[in-house]
Formats: sequence, structure tokens, C-alpha cells
Amino acid sequence: MPPSRVAIIGVGLIGGSLARALKRCGERVRGYDADPMVLQRARESGVIDEPCAHLCGAVEGAEIVVIAVPLGAVPGVFQGLAGSLDGHAVITDVGSVKASVVHAARRYLGHHLPRFVPGHPIAGTEHSGVENSCAGLFHGQRVILTPLAETDPRALERVRWLWQQTGAVVEDMEIGQHDQVFAATSHLPHVLAYALVRAAARVSGRSALLRYAAGGFADITRIASSNPVMWRDIFFANRVRLIEMIERFREDLALLRDAIEAEDGPAVVAFLEEAKNTRDALAAEQRIGPDLVGEKKR
Amino acid sequence: MPPSRVAIIGVGLIGGSLARALKRCGERVRGYDADPMVLQRARESGVIDEPCAHLCGAVEGAEIVVIAVPLGAVPGVFQGLAGSLDGHAVITDVGSVKASVVHAARRYLGHHLPRFVPGHPIAGTEHSGVENSCAGLFHGQRVILTPLAETDPRALERVRWLWQQTGAVVEDMEIGQHDQVFAATSHLPHVLAYALVRAAARVSGRSALLRYAAGGFADITRIASSNPVMWRDIFFANRVRLIEMIERFREDLALLRDAIEAEDGPAVVAFLEEAKNTRDALAAEQRIGPDLVGEKKR
Repeated sequence: MPPSRVAIIGVGLIGGSLARALKRCGERVRGYDADPMVLQRARESGVIDEPCAHLCGAVEGAEIVVIAVPLGAVPGVFQGLAGSLDGHAVITDVGSVKASVVHAARRYLGHHLPRFVPGHPIAGTEHSGVENSCAGLFHGQRVILTPLAETDPRALERVRWLWQQTGAVVEDMEIGQHDQVFAATSHLPHVLAYALVRAAARVSGRSALLRYAAGGFADITRIASSNPVMWRDIFFANRVRLIEMIERFREDLALLRDAIEAEDGPAVVAFLEEAKNTRDALAAEQRIGPDLVGEKKR
Repeated sequence: MPPSRVAIIGVGLIGGSLARALKRCGERVRGYDADPMVLQRARESGVIDEPCAHLCGAVEGAEIVVIAVPLGAVPGVFQGLAGSLDGHAVITDVGSVKASVVHAARRYLGHHLPRFVPGHPIAGTEHSGVENSCAGLFHGQRVILTPLAETDPRALERVRWLWQQTGAVVEDMEIGQHDQVFAATSHLPHVLAYALVRAAARVSGRSALLRYAAGGFADITRIASSNPVMWRDIFFANRVRLIEMIERFREDLALLRDAIEAEDGPAVVAFLEEAKNTRDALAAEQRIGPDLVGEKKR
């Protein structure tokens, strides 16, 4: 049996789904998880071939190392594995924020840095954990890579190849642009969903909320069921841009609020129509490329 | 053929769906719409039996008059039909805000007021218009009635019966509580969705937004595709409570924002966990009573 070339560090929803997708393509996959129970479940359910009890053992001899731990754990993992990495190993990650990961990579990866390719698969659901992993999670979804100036082009192509095996559409982006775009399209929406659930429960009472919340409320707050620790890490990792994005949002909210308070009909309708046009264009985009924009989980 | 007992004023998504549901139960339904094209489409697609070119004609001799026009048009309709109402006619409406409708009813309905039963079916989608109407829209959904102190109990029972024909679960609520609960669970979420789309498009650029927005963003902003004029009316009709609700939300948003800015991990996790628990309870409620909480449109 050939040795496993791919090591997955952190076998949760993303790491587990990647392992499943790669195994479907004939790869053997080894895995490590800080939680031994998770590792055991991953082995028992056939998500990985080779469970490794230690981070160093998982990394030794691996050609590609995928770090799929919560963002807050990334620096520690870099620090822990740097000494065991093969001199040709390609390293990548799946973090939702890239500047903080790159900062940690520069600090801990040393001469391995040119073989590190920061990555971010735009996939996932509000249900985390290896038990929710599936081989098709990335199929037709985008995976964004944010190579550094010093990134070895061969390492970049290797990681691109890895994700293409899962059926993902891989594209490159500049780190700052990535963190800006996802502050707006993902991190802020999560902040709003969590804050909305709290405010609504506080004002109408939890039982009335549960009783009368209709489909619209269920939709808008679905992502508030996401993993709190994972999202704490994301919020902290993209803190500066997120805080700025919250401020931009507060400006728009104040605009609409003031127009409502002043009963300024034309201003309110213009505001709503502009938003509706953009949202309708997004829905059209989804219809054109239904498997490109996260329809899978619906 | 028996004369139609039910007159529906405003044949949009709600009025049209009610007409379809009643016709399925063997009722004959007459309809009026301020837009002659809408009325023609409603007749051609069999939504109503008897199109009426004038409001007065639609109302004359009807036993039950259902007002299903946008909230902003309700006072004008009350004013226009009061003189043509039968002395035994029961009147009801479908507005998402009740205090403003009751205010207009007190002003214009005169001696008909005891036969007016304010109502609100908790159903609908972001797609409005008679072309999206369907007989099953209310099946298993809640319809809330907010009777006044002077409401004739027989009128209340008549309207309850009407909605039960559609398969809805009918319950009574106090007007102020209704407007408070729906400011929190419906009107505020719409404000946030519209403001989020605008802020995200402004910061990341519309094309990047359309390209990288994933399922979470699509979910949270779905309701921003709703009809701007209808929502302007709802925002204005529930203006005072909505503005207050926006303030409550801003407080919670500021709490979370400050905890993120201070990198206060325990505070952020506690905030997210509280919201997640409530949201998970909502999801559980939906699983227990899947047809009670707007699953139909999913």
C-alpha cells in the first residue's frame, strides 16, 4: 500500500470533508486531531486511513500538510510542526482570515515559508464537526488561494491541484482584498445574526420569539447556529477590518433608520430598491451557476 | 350559482392565495384590485371568480370583506368602502402592523367598527404578486387576530372560520404585543438585511460581492429581495416600535463589537453561545412543527 502523501491536521467539517474527497480520488490520507475522540470517530467512519496520535508523526514524510484547525489554534500548530516538516513538504491552510495566518506563518515556518500557500475554501454549513463532513462539500465551490511574494510557484500549483481533486473552482486573490471581502460577505453577517437573535429574544421574550418567528427570521439567523469558538477566532483574526465593517454597516443602518423616522418615503424606497437590485442580482448569479454559490446545503 | 360571499380587496400574494384556498373549499370569490392588469391576470388564471372594476361594487352585498392591500393603502380603502358595506358585513385585513390599521378603522369605519377584526397571516415569501399566489400558502401557518374591546364575538368567529378553511392555525393576540413581537422578528430583520446588502456592496464592490458571497450571505439577505413599497409601508406603520427595536439591536451590536475590539474571548463566546442556544431552539421548534413555521417556501 503506498504511504499517505496528504496529512490533514484538524479533522473537523472542512478537514474531514477534504479527506473524504481525496480518498474518493484514490489518495491515502493521514489525520491528526487535538481531540483523540474526534480522531477515533474519523478513523471509525472511514474519513481518514491513518490516524496519528501526535502532530509531529502526522507531518513527518508527508508531501502536503493541510492545516484545518480553528484559526486561534493555527500559530500553535505552525510552531509544533515546523521542526518535523520534510524539506519539500507543501503546507496549506483553510482559515477564513488570511492576514493573521500569514503573520503566524512568517513567525514560525522559517525556511518552509516559500512552500506555504494560504488557502480558504468558501464552503461550510452552520453544522461543524467531522460527523457532518461529506466528500461533495467543495464540489463546484470556490477555493481562494492568497500566495505570498515569496511563495514557490510549484507549491502554489500543488495546492491548486489538491483542491481541484475535490471539484472546487480555485482562484487566487490578494490577502488584503480577501480579508476585506470576507469581512463584508461573511464575518459581518455572522455578527449581525448573533446580535439579532439576542436583541429579538430580549425584546419579545424567548418563547414568543420561538412561537412567532417565521421563515424570514429563520433564514436571517441560520448562521447564528454556527460554532461560537470558531467564530470568536475568526472575529479576532480579522478584528480590525471587521470593526471597520461594523462601522460601515452602522452608517447604512443609521441612514435607513433616519429615513424611516422622518417618514421620508422616497429615501426609504430608494434605499430598499438599491439593496433589492443587488440581492436580486445575487439570486440570478446563483441560478446561473447554482453549484458555485453554496446551494448544496439548502 | 350562489353569489360570492367573500370579497377580496387587493389580489396580490396574500389576497390571491386566500382566494385560491377558499375556492378550493367551494367558495365563490369576488375580487378588486386598484391595478386593472392585476385584476385581469387574477381572473385569467382562475384566482377569483368575479372581478369587480370598482371598490364599491366589490363590497356591496359581501358577507366577508378581506382587505389585502399594502398597509399604506388601507386608510384609503376603509374610507372608500365604508359607505357601500352591508350592515352585517364582517371586515378583516391582513396587515403586518395592527395599531396603524386599527387607528384607520376607528377613523373611517364608523358603525361598522364592531364587525372589523384585525388579522395578520404569518406567511409570505420574498416574491410578491398574484403570480406567486398558491392555495397552500397558509396551510399549517399561524394567523393572528387582534380583536378590539368592541369587536363583536360573532365577527371574530366568522374570521377565525375563514382562515381555518385555509388550514391555518388561528390565534388571538393583543395589538401592542403583536406589533412589538413583529418589530423584533420580522420588521427589524428586514431593515438589517437591506442595510447589510448596501454596506457589503459599498465596501467590497458589487461584483466581488456577487462573486464571493456564499450560502450564509444568501440566507441572511434573502428577505432584502422583498417588495420595497410594501416594506416602506410596514416600516412607517410600525415606525415607533421599529425605531426602538433598531436601538435595542444597536445596543447588542455595540456589546459584541466592543468585546471583539477588546479581544475579550469569554465575553464573545458567552454572547455567541446565548444566541446559538436560542437559534438552535428555534430550529428544534421548526423540526417539531415543520409546517407551523414557514418551511413551505424552502
